[in-house]
Amino acid sequence: MMDTTAPRPGSLKVGWIGAGRMGAAMASRLARAGEDVTVWNRTRAKAEALTEVGCAVADTIADLRGHDVVFTMVSTPADLEQVLVGEGGLLADPARVPAVVVDCSTVSTESSAAMRAACSERGVAFLAAPVSGNGKVVRAGGLSLVVSGPEETYERVAHLLDHLGKGATYVGEGELARLAKICHNVMLGVVTQCLAEITVLAEKGGMSRAAFLEFLNKSVMGSVFTTYKTPAFVNLDYTPTFTPILLRKDFDLGLAAARQLDVPMPVAAATNAAVQASVSSGRVEEDFAILLDLQAHNSGITLKPENVQVDDGLGGGPDQ
Amino acid sequence: MMDTTAPRPGSLKVGWIGAGRMGAAMASRLARAGEDVTVWNRTRAKAEALTEVGCAVADTIADLRGHDVVFTMVSTPADLEQVLVGEGGLLADPARVPAVVVDCSTVSTESSAAMRAACSERGVAFLAAPVSGNGKVVRAGGLSLVVSGPEETYERVAHLLDHLGKGATYVGEGELARLAKICHNVMLGVVTQCLAEITVLAEKGGMSRAAFLEFLNKSVMGSVFTTYKTPAFVNLDYTPTFTPILLRKDFDLGLAAARQLDVPMPVAAATNAAVQASVSSGRVEEDFAILLDLQAHNSGITLKPENVQVDDGLGGGPDQ
Amino acid sequence: MMDTTAPRPGSLKVGWIGAGRMGAAMASRLARAGEDVTVWNRTRAKAEALTEVGCAVADTIADLRGHDVVFTMVSTPADLEQVLVGEGGLLADPARVPAVVVDCSTVSTESSAAMRAACSERGVAFLAAPVSGNGKVVRAGGLSLVVSGPEETYERVAHLLDHLGKGATYVGEGELARLAKICHNVMLGVVTQCLAEITVLAEKGGMSRAAFLEFLNKSVMGSVFTTYKTPAFVNLDYTPTFTPILLRKDFDLGLAAARQLDVPMPVAAATNAAVQASVSSGRVEEDFAILLDLQAHNSGITLKPENVQVDDGLGGGPDQ
Amino acid sequence: MMDTTAPRPGSLKVGWIGAGRMGAAMASRLARAGEDVTVWNRTRAKAEALTEVGCAVADTIADLRGHDVVFTMVSTPADLEQVLVGEGGLLADPARVPAVVVDCSTVSTESSAAMRAACSERGVAFLAAPVSGNGKVVRAGGLSLVVSGPEETYERVAHLLDHLGKGATYVGEGELARLAKICHNVMLGVVTQCLAEITVLAEKGGMSRAAFLEFLNKSVMGSVFTTYKTPAFVNLDYTPTFTPILLRKDFDLGLAAARQLDVPMPVAAATNAAVQASVSSGRVEEDFAILLDLQAHNSGITLKPENVQVDDGLGGGPDQ
Repeated sequence: MMDTTAPRPGSLKVGWIGAGRMGAAMASRLARAGEDVTVWNRTRAKAEALTEVGCAVADTIADLRGHDVVFTMVSTPADLEQVLVGEGGLLADPARVPAVVVDCSTVSTESSAAMRAACSERGVAFLAAPVSGNGKVVRAGGLSLVVSGPEETYERVAHLLDHLGKGATYVGEGELARLAKICHNVMLGVVTQCLAEITVLAEKGGMSRAAFLEFLNKSVMGSVFTTYKTPAFVNLDYTPTFTPILLRKDFDLGLAAARQLDVPMPVAAATNAAVQASVSSGRVEEDFAILLDLQAHNSGITLKPENVQVDDGLGGGPDQ
Repeated sequence: MMDTTAPRPGSLKVGWIGAGRMGAAMASRLARAGEDVTVWNRTRAKAEALTEVGCAVADTIADLRGHDVVFTMVSTPADLEQVLVGEGGLLADPARVPAVVVDCSTVSTESSAAMRAACSERGVAFLAAPVSGNGKVVRAGGLSLVVSGPEETYERVAHLLDHLGKGATYVGEGELARLAKICHNVMLGVVTQCLAEITVLAEKGGMSRAAFLEFLNKSVMGSVFTTYKTPAFVNLDYTPTFTPILLRKDFDLGLAAARQLDVPMPVAAATNAAVQASVSSGRVEEDFAILLDLQAHNSGITLKPENVQVDDGLGGGPDQ
Repeated sequence: MMDTTAPRPGSLKVGWIGAGRMGAAMASRLARAGEDVTVWNRTRAKAEALTEVGCAVADTIADLRGHDVVFTMVSTPADLEQVLVGEGGLLADPARVPAVVVDCSTVSTESSAAMRAACSERGVAFLAAPVSGNGKVVRAGGLSLVVSGPEETYERVAHLLDHLGKGATYVGEGELARLAKICHNVMLGVVTQCLAEITVLAEKGGMSRAAFLEFLNKSVMGSVFTTYKTPAFVNLDYTPTFTPILLRKDFDLGLAAARQLDVPMPVAAATNAAVQASVSSGRVEEDFAILLDLQAHNSGITLKPENVQVDDGLGGGPDQ
Repeated sequence: MMDTTAPRPGSLKVGWIGAGRMGAAMASRLARAGEDVTVWNRTRAKAEALTEVGCAVADTIADLRGHDVVFTMVSTPADLEQVLVGEGGLLADPARVPAVVVDCSTVSTESSAAMRAACSERGVAFLAAPVSGNGKVVRAGGLSLVVSGPEETYERVAHLLDHLGKGATYVGEGELARLAKICHNVMLGVVTQCLAEITVLAEKGGMSRAAFLEFLNKSVMGSVFTTYKTPAFVNLDYTPTFTPILLRKDFDLGLAAARQLDVPMPVAAATNAAVQASVSSGRVEEDFAILLDLQAHNSGITLKPENVQVDDGLGGGPDQ
C-alpha cells in the first residue's frame, strides 16, 4: 500500500481527538512522520505529552473544526457521538466543519452509520477505520486498519493511514469496515480457543507451554497475535487486555451478522460456547486468555505458571 | 535461538537423504551456509542439481554411514524405514554408523519410535525434527522445526537446524515433536475453516475476498500461512499443496491423541466435521482449501475467481 | 396430573377462539369430554363444523366475554393481539370480561407479557399454555401443554387442560412456559439433526432407513416425534409441517435466552449451524426434515425414497 | 413385527447362557411366555432363581449343545468368546452343536464377526441381536432388539424375540445390528447432553427441573429414556447405570464408523467433546448423567437435589 505519489508530509492539517493509550501512540506516529497534528483530549495532560513529538494541543474541539482531516479514537459509541455531535462537538457549528472525519474507534455498525449520516448532512466525508492491534503493537509499528466509506476520501488520506503502521486496506462503501473488524475478532476468539486446546494437549503430552508455543510462533501458523499472547499462556498472567465480556459481545455481533447474511458458522459457534462459558465462570475482570484455564479444567488438570521470561514479539517494555 | 558459540561451518560432516522439493531446498540452505553436505537421492539427478550450491553427491546410502550427522527427508514412514533399516540402508552395517540421525519427515509417532529404537540398538542418537512450511517457505527462509530426542544431541546439531530457516525448538524427549507437529496441523485446519467462515461472511456482506484477506493478513491475526493461502482463496486455485485426505489423517491423529490424553477439543472436533465433509465431497485430488467452496455452498452461494494478482508473501515465482 | 377431585364437566362456561386445524381438534376434545364450549372463528364455517361434537358457535368474539374461561389458539402474535385487545376483541369492553384467558398459541415472550399485562389491567387472569404436538397428535390424544401464570388460575382450569390430551404441566409464574416451549423446540432440532447423522451413517453402512428407524422408534430412544417423523425420513416426503425458517426462529430465541441467562449450549449451537444451512440452501418452503438431505449431501450421497409404507404412530389417515 | 403365524410356544428347545440382571429378566420373559428354556450361569444360584418362572437349569454349557437355539447375554467380548469357543464352550464339540446362536450382548463388530465365523465353521447360524433397555425396562416389557445375520434364521426365531418385549427389527446381513446399536448409543449421548443444556437453561430461567422435565416427558419429544433418566436429573442421583467411560467408548466406535464411512457428524462430535470432558472430570464411577453437573458448572451454577419423588415410567420398585 506504499503510495509512491504520496503527498508531501504536512500538506494536510490534521486534528486528532482522543489521546488515550492507543490514540496517543497513533497520533505520535503521525507527528514523527512529519505530519502537522493538533491533538485534543478530555484530560489535557495526555495531549500535552504529545508536544514532545511535535504535536500541537487544542484547547477545545472547536479549534479542530477548520482542519482538513480529523481523526477520532475514543472508547465508546457514546464518546464518539459526544465529540462529534454533542455540545461543543466537532460538527456543532454547521458553518465550520472539517472536510473529513476518520473514526478509528471500535463502534457498532449502527453507531457508525449514525455518525456517517450526521457527517453527510453537514457535507463532511466520513471513513470508518477500525484498527487491529493494541498500544504496544502501534509503537512496534504493527498497527493495521480496515477502511470503508467514499473511495476518493480514502485515497485522499491513505498516506496518513500508512504512517500509522503496516497500512490500511480499503474494503468498500458504508460500514463494511465494521463487519471486517468483527470477522477479525471472531478469528481472534477461534484462534485463542484453538491455542487453548492444542496447548493443553501438548502439555498433557509432556511439553512445556513455553517450548510448544515458541515452536508454534516460529511456525507458519504464528502471528503477531499468537506471539504477544504467549506470555499470558505461559505464565498465566491474566491481566486484562480484552475481557471475556467484550469478546462475547463481538461474537454476538459476528453471529448476528451470520444470521442476517445466512452464513452457517460451525467453528465460530463452537468457539462461542467456550467464550460464553468463560463469561459464565464469573472471571469477567480477567483477560479472555482464561479460555486456557477453562480448557485445562475441562481436561482434568490445573495449570501452573511456568515463570519463564517470554518475548511478546513487540519489543521494548511492558505495555501497562 | 541464535547460538553465539555456534561451531565453525563445516566442522561436522553432514549426510542428506532425500532431495525432493523440500529436501533439496533444505540441503541447499545448509550448503550455502558453508556446511559440508553430501546428498543421496533415489533419483540421482535431483542430488546432482545440488552440486551447484556446493553439495557433494553420494552414490549409495552406504557412503553416508561414516558421516557425523545424517538428515532424512522422505515421503512416507515406509521410505524412512527403507533408507534406515532396509537393505543397503544407513544402519545396515553395525560396524559403521553415523553418530546422529535427524529425521525431518512427517511420520507417525509409532514409526518414529521404531526408528529411534533401531538407532538406539546401534548406538546412534535419533532426533525427530518435523518441519513447518513447504518448499517455497524454505526458500524464503521461513522454515521452522520442532525437535525431540536426547537434549545433548539437539545441542550438538542446533546450529545446523538454525541454518534451515527461522530455527528449531526443542520440546523434550522421545517422540514429543511428532505430537507438536500434529497440534500444528490441527491449528492449520481450524484456521483454514475459520478463514472460510469469515471470508464467506465478509463476501456476503459486500467485500471482495482480496480486500478482506489483505486486511486480515496485515492485521495481528495474519500469519505466513494465512498469507500464502490467500491466492487460493481469492482466485479459487485449488492446485493441491496438501489434500483433504492428508488433513483428515492429521485430525485423526490429533483427535486420537486427545482421546488418549483425555482432552476434549470442541473446536477441533467442529473443524474435523468440515474436514470430513471435504473428503466426503469427493474432491480429494484438490487442495484442502476447498473448505472455502464447501462453506460457500453451505451458505447458499457459488464463488467466482476474483482474478486478482495476490502476493503470497513468500517472494519469487510460483512453487510448482 | 389426573386430578381426582376434578369438577363436574360443564361447570365452567368455556369460550374458544380459533378453530384452525389445531384449535378445532382441541375444542373438539373439550366438547367430547362433556364441557360446555362455544367457539368463534374468523371463518365461521370452521366453527360450524364443531357443532357435530356439541360445540356452540359464537357470532362475535363479544359473545364470549361473559364466559368463565376463554382459550385462544391463533397463528401469530398479531392475531392474538387482535382477538384480545383489537377492535371488538375479547377485552374491548372493560365492563364485561371473562375471568380467565388461556393462550395456547406459540407467541414470543414479549407478546405473551404484553397480553398478560392487558389482561391484568382488566382484572383477567392470564395463562400462557403453549402446546407440544400437531393436529394429528391432538386427535390421537397425544397433546401436552406447558403452563405458566398464577398457580390458582392453573388449578382452576387444570381439568380442562387434562381433557386436551396427556395433560398439562405447570412450570411457574409469568412467561416461563414460553421458555419451556423454546427449550422443547431446541430439542426437536437437536434430535432431528442427530437422527439425520445416524440415519445416514446407518444407510451408508448398509441398512435401509425404514429398518433402522423402526428399530430406533421401538427402542428406549424412540418418541412420538421420532415416530411421526419417520415417514418423511424414509420416503423423503418433505411436505412442510414446520419449515426451516420457523425452526431457525426458535433457535434464535433459544440461543438468545441462553445468551441472556449465561448458558453455553455447544450441542444446540452445532445444531443451529445445520439449521442455518438448511435455510441457506433456499429450500425454505419444505419441511425442516430436509436436514436429512443436507446431511446426505455432506456425506457424499444422494438419498432415494424407499417407497415403503411407514406407520407414523398416530393412527388414522394423513393429517393434511 | 407381530407374526400372526408364530409357532406354538415350546416348539423350539431354548438354551440361555448368562443370567445376570438383564439375562435373567429376558429368560424369565421367555419362560413366562410358555417357552422351554434351560439356563446356564457361571454362578449357578442365579440360574436356580429362574426355576420359579419355569426355567430348567443346566449344570454345564455342554448340556445346551443339543438345543435348537441358544441365547447368549454376557458382559464382555471375552466372556462371549469363552462361553462359545473356550474350553467346555458351546461350540467345543464339533459333533454336537445347536442350530442357532443368538447373541444379545453388546460386543464390538470385530468380536461379533469372529464369533459368526466360528459358528459358521461348525454349521451354526449366528444372529447378532443387541438390545435397547436395561433390566428394569425388560421387566416393564419395553425391551427392543435389533438383529442382523441370515434372514431365514431371523424368521425362525422371531417369535422368541417378540416375547422379550416390544419386538425385534431385522436390519440386514452380517454385523449391521452392531452398527445400529452404536447409532442408538450416539443418540443416547446426544439426547442426554441436549437435555443437560435445556434443563440448565430452564432452571436458570426459573423453572424446577422436575416441572420442566415432566412437561418434556409428556411432550412429543419424551421417550422411555428421557423418562427413566428424569429421577437422576431431578434428584442428582448419579448411581451408575452406564458410566462416562462406557459412553465414550460407544462414541469412539460411532465416530470411527463415521470416519470409515465418510459421514461428517457435527452434532455427535460436539457431544463427544462433552462426553470426553465428563471422563476428564475424573467422575468415572458415576452415571453418565453427570453431563448435567458439568453443564451446570459451565453455566456458573451448582445444582441441588430437588428431593422430589419422580416416576421413572417403568413401574415397580427400583432396579438396583
